[in-house]
Amino acid sequence: MVETVENQAVSGSARNAAGLGPTDAERRHDPAARGFASDNYAGVHPEILAAVALANGGHQVAYGEDAYTAHLQEVFRAHFGPSAQAYPVFNGTGANVVALQAVTTRWESVICAESAHIHVDECGAPEKLAGLKLLTVPTEDGRLTPELIDRQAWGWGDQHRAQPRVVSIAESTELGTVYSPEEIAEICRHAHDQGMLVHLDGARLANAAASLGVPLRALSTDAGVDIMSFGGTKNGLMFGEAVVVLNPDAVRGLDYLRKLSMQLASKMRFVSVQFEALLAGDLWLRNASHANAMAARLADAVRDIPGVALTRPVRSNAVFAVLPAEATERLQKRFRFYTWDESTGEVRWMTAFDTTEADIDTFAAAVREELTE
Amino acid sequence: MVETVENQAVSGSARNAAGLGPTDAERRHDPAARGFASDNYAGVHPEILAAVALANGGHQVAYGEDAYTAHLQEVFRAHFGPSAQAYPVFNGTGANVVALQAVTTRWESVICAESAHIHVDECGAPEKLAGLKLLTVPTEDGRLTPELIDRQAWGWGDQHRAQPRVVSIAESTELGTVYSPEEIAEICRHAHDQGMLVHLDGARLANAAASLGVPLRALSTDAGVDIMSFGGTKNGLMFGEAVVVLNPDAVRGLDYLRKLSMQLASKMRFVSVQFEALLAGDLWLRNASHANAMAARLADAVRDIPGVALTRPVRSNAVFAVLPAEATERLQKRFRFYTWDESTGEVRWMTAFDTTEADIDTFAAAVREELTE
Amino acid sequence: MVETVENQAVSGSARNAAGLGPTDAERRHDPAARGFASDNYAGVHPEILAAVALANGGHQVAYGEDAYTAHLQEVFRAHFGPSAQAYPVFNGTGANVVALQAVTTRWESVICAESAHIHVDECGAPEKLAGLKLLTVPTEDGRLTPELIDRQAWGWGDQHRAQPRVVSIAESTELGTVYSPEEIAEICRHAHDQGMLVHLDGARLANAAASLGVPLRALSTDAGVDIMSFGGTKNGLMFGEAVVVLNPDAVRGLDYLRKLSMQLASKMRFVSVQFEALLAGDLWLRNASHANAMAARLADAVRDIPGVALTRPVRSNAVFAVLPAEATERLQKRFRFYTWDESTGEVRWMTAFDTTEADIDTFAAAVREELTE
Amino acid sequence: MVETVENQAVSGSARNAAGLGPTDAERRHDPAARGFASDNYAGVHPEILAAVALANGGHQVAYGEDAYTAHLQEVFRAHFGPSAQAYPVFNGTGANVVALQAVTTRWESVICAESAHIHVDECGAPEKLAGLKLLTVPTEDGRLTPELIDRQAWGWGDQHRAQPRVVSIAESTELGTVYSPEEIAEICRHAHDQGMLVHLDGARLANAAASLGVPLRALSTDAGVDIMSFGGTKNGLMFGEAVVVLNPDAVRGLDYLRKLSMQLASKMRFVSVQFEALLAGDLWLRNASHANAMAARLADAVRDIPGVALTRPVRSNAVFAVLPAEATERLQKRFRFYTWDESTGEVRWMTAFDTTEADIDTFAAAVREELTE
Repeated sequence: MVETVENQAVSGSARNAAGLGPTDAERRHDPAARGFASDNYAGVHPEILAAVALANGGHQVAYGEDAYTAHLQEVFRAHFGPSAQAYPVFNGTGANVVALQAVTTRWESVICAESAHIHVDECGAPEKLAGLKLLTVPTEDGRLTPELIDRQAWGWGDQHRAQPRVVSIAESTELGTVYSPEEIAEICRHAHDQGMLVHLDGARLANAAASLGVPLRALSTDAGVDIMSFGGTKNGLMFGEAVVVLNPDAVRGLDYLRKLSMQLASKMRFVSVQFEALLAGDLWLRNASHANAMAARLADAVRDIPGVALTRPVRSNAVFAVLPAEATERLQKRFRFYTWDESTGEVRWMTAFDTTEADIDTFAAAVREELTE
Repeated sequence: MVETVENQAVSGSARNAAGLGPTDAERRHDPAARGFASDNYAGVHPEILAAVALANGGHQVAYGEDAYTAHLQEVFRAHFGPSAQAYPVFNGTGANVVALQAVTTRWESVICAESAHIHVDECGAPEKLAGLKLLTVPTEDGRLTPELIDRQAWGWGDQHRAQPRVVSIAESTELGTVYSPEEIAEICRHAHDQGMLVHLDGARLANAAASLGVPLRALSTDAGVDIMSFGGTKNGLMFGEAVVVLNPDAVRGLDYLRKLSMQLASKMRFVSVQFEALLAGDLWLRNASHANAMAARLADAVRDIPGVALTRPVRSNAVFAVLPAEATERLQKRFRFYTWDESTGEVRWMTAFDTTEADIDTFAAAVREELTE
Repeated sequence: MVETVENQAVSGSARNAAGLGPTDAERRHDPAARGFASDNYAGVHPEILAAVALANGGHQVAYGEDAYTAHLQEVFRAHFGPSAQAYPVFNGTGANVVALQAVTTRWESVICAESAHIHVDECGAPEKLAGLKLLTVPTEDGRLTPELIDRQAWGWGDQHRAQPRVVSIAESTELGTVYSPEEIAEICRHAHDQGMLVHLDGARLANAAASLGVPLRALSTDAGVDIMSFGGTKNGLMFGEAVVVLNPDAVRGLDYLRKLSMQLASKMRFVSVQFEALLAGDLWLRNASHANAMAARLADAVRDIPGVALTRPVRSNAVFAVLPAEATERLQKRFRFYTWDESTGEVRWMTAFDTTEADIDTFAAAVREELTE
Repeated sequence: MVETVENQAVSGSARNAAGLGPTDAERRHDPAARGFASDNYAGVHPEILAAVALANGGHQVAYGEDAYTAHLQEVFRAHFGPSAQAYPVFNGTGANVVALQAVTTRWESVICAESAHIHVDECGAPEKLAGLKLLTVPTEDGRLTPELIDRQAWGWGDQHRAQPRVVSIAESTELGTVYSPEEIAEICRHAHDQGMLVHLDGARLANAAASLGVPLRALSTDAGVDIMSFGGTKNGLMFGEAVVVLNPDAVRGLDYLRKLSMQLASKMRFVSVQFEALLAGDLWLRNASHANAMAARLADAVRDIPGVALTRPVRSNAVFAVLPAEATERLQKRFRFYTWDESTGEVRWMTAFDTTEADIDTFAAAVREELTE
């Protein structure tokens, strides 16, 4: 059932019927309500939750020395090659900031798109906690190119300039666009030629791989990426991301950096087993493909509605559109989603692993309603 | 069943029998094996896991605007009074560093015991991420007093000295000792009289309250504490701690600080509902009391073994003892636990919410064996 | 005598003829050689050096409690009004970073031009040492406007965005342009209306005031600026800048921030007396006016040379021009100056308090030579 | 003439008689008044001032590419050996923080005495600006030993512990004590054996070398020190310290770190020429020896006064003594000096390069007076 404003005000009266037996807690939300604001609004995929339950019981060494984290290395290596090393962390900002610290000294800097999550959505964590200087470049669609990188890739040896050391790209980008494997490879070659490394913010790497029909490693290891933030939460985990080292020679101190960046989970088995459940089989792909398909369905359903203009190609699980301000306002009274750019009236609709076809159809109908009033 | 070295090497062959149906993942550990290394080695209390399952399904606003986090405020206020504000975070280091930033400017410093977790166990996170200067004081048993605080509480107005602004104490301490409500109140009065605030690292506050037979607020709100890190993970949660503001006038910017400190969970409902399950009823007390009782049982069982000397009063869920190095060595081949001080041979044994009487008895028998060989 | 490449290689053979009597040291440079690379290449104005000598001898309390620093407050108040408080520091980067810390919390950010010195020329000091997030805006000529500021002035209350708190402008700008008093006042009103403060990087404020024919306070205090970095080194001092607080209500912790930012001179009297010599009379204006006049003379002298295109209005002591790459190359073999933009061939020529008319004429003749070859 | 409270209130009426001709400024202090509070209270040695004047005039490349800084390398190599590299900076805190950053990663820490200047007198600059965790050790007299170092030198490989990487010692120490060359060599061997480096805070290295009758390199290069802060200001410079790299293999990024730590002087020739004047001949030794001799004279003069107890051996230019609180109070009304430890009544009297025998005798007589009242 698609989330509506009335649904949001659900009381806690619906008893848990899952047989798990809580007696104190009551459900405080409608477990069938879904919206289009963010893939972070979704819950946990049942297979993930089952894996968490499986890992429970007994004692396991804390802080990463447990059997699940040990095994997780094999799981990641199966996807990303024999050099890959995975460091589970709590969240995406944490993964990015830990990864970027591991490939920079105190005097180096990071080239990224002006729209990058690390620049616009992390409350300054890279600068404030890790002293990372970001050198931003405006882009048309969230994607860097060698030419765009070169606008900031200069000044090596100049003591007045924080030395450019890492190019950070996101796959998919904040704007829902994707790089092809060749495009990432070209960026990596370009960066490496200048003595720089490449960090990939893969909070939605699964969505990109699903969209392109390529394995995860085609967009990372095989393209020459040195270090990666690999996302789990947006693809069905309860919580958990991973810093994945692809080029171990380029990285130092990750164990320490994860701890001092407050990203070291004590009961790490519960992060690791979620990733195992996501990646050991094809759950990562099922979830991402489904979310992508729902975005495509939504785009198709609203494309022809007069007054709706899709503003970006729909390549992952995000749909960007411009519609009249009053229509947006009316629609946001019924469904929660974000206005992306106040000045243009662009909105963002996101789908998740649990979005249903019925949700899409209900929402698309509402868009049509509000625009034809 | 108590954890032994053989048990630790359990294969993943034991199928999940919980009926939750994972087909890809296998259990990689013995869910009945338990040890004495840390309360962090334990898993998740079943009631907590049930609560997590209950909160699943449907969409909830991310980053703390969900129904569970909203309700959690009531739960915390019931324990800590009407001014309390709870900010769920990922882990204890995160809670401490976020809380301390919220009550200091860039030029201020924190007085703490030399043995404090923030000083010895966080890889420098306070200094490295938040620029917090720690002014440490040696203590006999991990506890500060007004007199000990005064060894660092001076130099206000001297531009060469990072200005002492916060006294940080832990309840219970790293050494398993506890402050009485009066002792905390005296520290708070002393700090406030000098224009300082008090932070309480309550990673094991539940254990202290259970030990003292007082409500949580007796050791925090009622004693005059300004801000607190309240622990969940060590008392049965999967993950999750909370920064709890008790004196809102003393605190600024907590929302931003939590985000920029990489401690803002996107699917926060799953942290909040765990705390609700812990605190809405008496689970916090049952878990802590049980862990404490198991520590007391262990202390009683080994107290009279020749060669074992208990080194500290057993006030919470930790037992400290000195035994001969060779005995420790043999014992650590059978059970995992930490040597606390190499120079004295002091070891630490910790119990958890899931430690059983049989675990204690098995372990105590082993201690006796190794010491009478 | 204008500096030429041959002159630069001057040996230390020229004995000091000033009668000051060093016996060990030899002059290692040609004291008559001058170039066009930077006003930082100049030495110390004789009146400044005399003041330093005057302040020598005897003991004075260190770290700012000396008689010269005390008196300096009056000197600054005479220029900037009765609320002004001056904090001498070592250098411009130090002044900027200290000032910006004093008007921001840990979670706030600074809006500035993409070309700002704090962004491009300080090796990341604001981010790396002080955790300051810079929100940059591209400008045409280095100057911000209310409209440009609004491109970054948004997102208050959003925990994901480092909160915009300060607008930092430079007078004159890195591109040699100047704001009128009205333009600065408009920026200040706009910032204040949104709850932000204004920092002025006045490394060359004297040049701007001289150019505009207004007192220093017209561009700072009277326009509503809250805090300022006031430059000395580029205007004839040996070293020394000052953080000048104009709105004391907006500022906290400056004494401590100066110390912890490593900008507290022990023998501060020697910084303060230089500022006294600069500001108590009209030396600041004589030096700046002269440098400006020399820039204007240079612009006039080269304006009509075929192949030379002046690229920006000459409003202070900098001349920007585009000339053919080969001509630049030949010219740089004879005189030291910087290529400002490799991609366009734009060069920057700067004049200083000690540039002579003959220097200008020699250089202009050389430009003509190289362009008519 | 020794400084007295009346002298401190000297008006600016005494005209500069040096013939340097300031007309606007007036001398605001008594150039003959001297006290015992700090060697930082002294002014500039005349030979240093003459050298500054010599370096004036003409243009020199800024930011360290000038002829004086180039030549300075030879001067430092003559003292510290052919591998030495000198980086002039502004002040001692700056030298320490730049040097320590150059030999640590983000996750490493620094072992130092509890009384170290970097710990107690820099307002937290190491922690706050550079994220340096200090692991302090209490000492009897300010000096570390291998045994004391070992109290913090442990935990390598433990992700919870900021990794000990540098031992920082001061020569002479904050308590006026000195290490012998052998003692420093032993510390260096001990540190190196454990994979650590050694930083020497040599703010008063000249005083130690003069006291011990050894060359500067005996206490640094030859003893195995890796990097050093070499002091100038306390030994007669106007301002200026130097980071001196002795083991270039151990150091990275010093150029960038100096700039981003706001310690890069634009008109660097004026720092460098001061060091040249200090070090090219024997001025460093004359100044330090004189200051030491004056401290010895003072110690001798007060040693037998009833009620005065010297508390530490007088090995450099500091005298520590305990006297009755009332006597201290009366004496501080006449002469400025610091109470070092309020709890014990210990005071510190420091001498400088310009302290005269008459100053000592006058002061010693006053001490006798106040104690025999």
